[in-house]
Amino acid sequence: MKSLTLLEVGKSVVYSESEEPIQKSGHSIVELHASALNHRDIWITKGLYPGIITPIILGSDGVGNLAGKNVIINPGLNWGQNEAAQSNDFEVLGLPQNGTFANKICIEDKYIYSMPDHLSILEAAALPLAGVTAYRVLFSRCKVKSSDRVLITGTGGGVALMAVQLALAFGCEVHVTSGSDLKIEKTLELGVHKGYNYKKEDWYKDVQGQFDVIIDSAGGQSFQHLIKICAPGARIGFYGASLGKYTNLNPQLMFWRQISLLGSTMGSDADFQDMLSFVSTHKIRPIIDEVFDLKDGAKAFAKMEAGEQFGKIVLQH
Amino acid sequence: MKSLTLLEVGKSVVYSESEEPIQKSGHSIVELHASALNHRDIWITKGLYPGIITPIILGSDGVGNLAGKNVIINPGLNWGQNEAAQSNDFEVLGLPQNGTFANKICIEDKYIYSMPDHLSILEAAALPLAGVTAYRVLFSRCKVKSSDRVLITGTGGGVALMAVQLALAFGCEVHVTSGSDLKIEKTLELGVHKGYNYKKEDWYKDVQGQFDVIIDSAGGQSFQHLIKICAPGARIGFYGASLGKYTNLNPQLMFWRQISLLGSTMGSDADFQDMLSFVSTHKIRPIIDEVFDLKDGAKAFAKMEAGEQFGKIVLQH
Repeated sequence: MKSLTLLEVGKSVVYSESEEPIQKSGHSIVELHASALNHRDIWITKGLYPGIITPIILGSDGVGNLAGKNVIINPGLNWGQNEAAQSNDFEVLGLPQNGTFANKICIEDKYIYSMPDHLSILEAAALPLAGVTAYRVLFSRCKVKSSDRVLITGTGGGVALMAVQLALAFGCEVHVTSGSDLKIEKTLELGVHKGYNYKKEDWYKDVQGQFDVIIDSAGGQSFQHLIKICAPGARIGFYGASLGKYTNLNPQLMFWRQISLLGSTMGSDADFQDMLSFVSTHKIRPIIDEVFDLKDGAKAFAKMEAGEQFGKIVLQH
Repeated sequence: MKSLTLLEVGKSVVYSESEEPIQKSGHSIVELHASALNHRDIWITKGLYPGIITPIILGSDGVGNLAGKNVIINPGLNWGQNEAAQSNDFEVLGLPQNGTFANKICIEDKYIYSMPDHLSILEAAALPLAGVTAYRVLFSRCKVKSSDRVLITGTGGGVALMAVQLALAFGCEVHVTSGSDLKIEKTLELGVHKGYNYKKEDWYKDVQGQFDVIIDSAGGQSFQHLIKICAPGARIGFYGASLGKYTNLNPQLMFWRQISLLGSTMGSDADFQDMLSFVSTHKIRPIIDEVFDLKDGAKAFAKMEAGEQFGKIVLQH
């Protein structure tokens, strides 16, 4: 079969011939028709992840066919019994286990779900990792209510954009930030209330009113300002920190307003199932930036790395 | 009547004659027999609080007599309907409304509760503010479970010590930190599992295993180390930050372990009622450091400021 394989850290993925997966007990072999990229895939090629082994077929998001039915794969393996946190055995599909950038995958049956009916195969491929991450941080961790005012930072990224779509479908008033006016404009078309360009110094001073929920994956120096635009009882959920550590956080503001900072990553099996149900009920369609052929995977990686995408970069197998 | 009154910011409180409170509709006049000091009282005398007016009778904790019955006062006024956070009208008894360091107080009936039977009047006076603050941060915010391993920093302070007592009564394995070996020794006598002197550099490296719940009121530079001794799914509750802002917090550690940072202060009417019930059920007796006569209030303030107390400083009226 064909696959996108990382042969060596620091190099590009290579479209090449791989051995077919071997059928294991309690597993099925899914014929994959589409997959999608996540930042994690890029970081692995650069060696910015613990426990990298090579050669490895990358890819966490996959959609395909099993016994004539369209199926979608939950990429969060071995979460365990505790809804509050993943077990030590937790893995994300695509490292160390071979991933979805291939024609076939052997995957444990409990991670195989029916694909939501209203989606195309390409749309569904854009859903798993971003969908479960956005769902968990918004619903399981921040316990968002439909009456909440929600701010989502860094719109355009896969998880952030999915969080925008989930919160809008739930009935929230949604605001976003981005470093790109174009991305803000595109997000406003989805029904977002207002956008703020974070490249403008003190952008947060333009916020009128306060937020009940803020979803962030940037962190860094400017994270401290998010506290200042929180309503009493606000929850700040975060699933990444591309700008690094939090500094200069004001605890007085936080405890007086009963603010919660809630770390979150991926999601449990229940989160994944609940996310699929929510997406089906609300007929949410993940936003696709561009579709590449699997054989052009290296180009897809280059686009992801450039960071100019709006929505998911999808691979057609 | 007699009272401890702050006549001018920056000066000591003065034991003096004050006018009797005037009866208002929906209120009762409670004859106060005991009260207790909180850090808030000290900070007000130093001008470290917003909205200070003088002259003001200080004091948030009060126990006394109403129509022949022992009663205890909830010092959290106008919390409002939202359990998640107090309303903008929230006040703590003792500023701007005259407080409990007096022979009598006029207080709205809904803030007057029966005093727990198992307590002496002096013990009960040590309970309200510390009790409701400790109860909310542990139970309402951190949702502590009896199987949790709990770390409480800065043992010896009124809230911290009350949190130790609540967590022990609930069945938790409780660890503490202090800057004083003597305070650690005294806390161990309560049934605490282990103590760490935070004056030892890298004390947190001596911790074996991880904590499910951490309760802190120090904050500052060293707060970052608390993250490192958190179990997956851990909750860090904080109700103060005497050492200032949080710096250098590692978001990766926090989101990968699904850690929650939960700001908390005082408590709702429900928190106060639940705290009284818990204390009654478990026959918890607040720890008293020393009892002063109301007329010696200035001495009590000086002891509180020196910070050498273990438990509450109580005033007998």
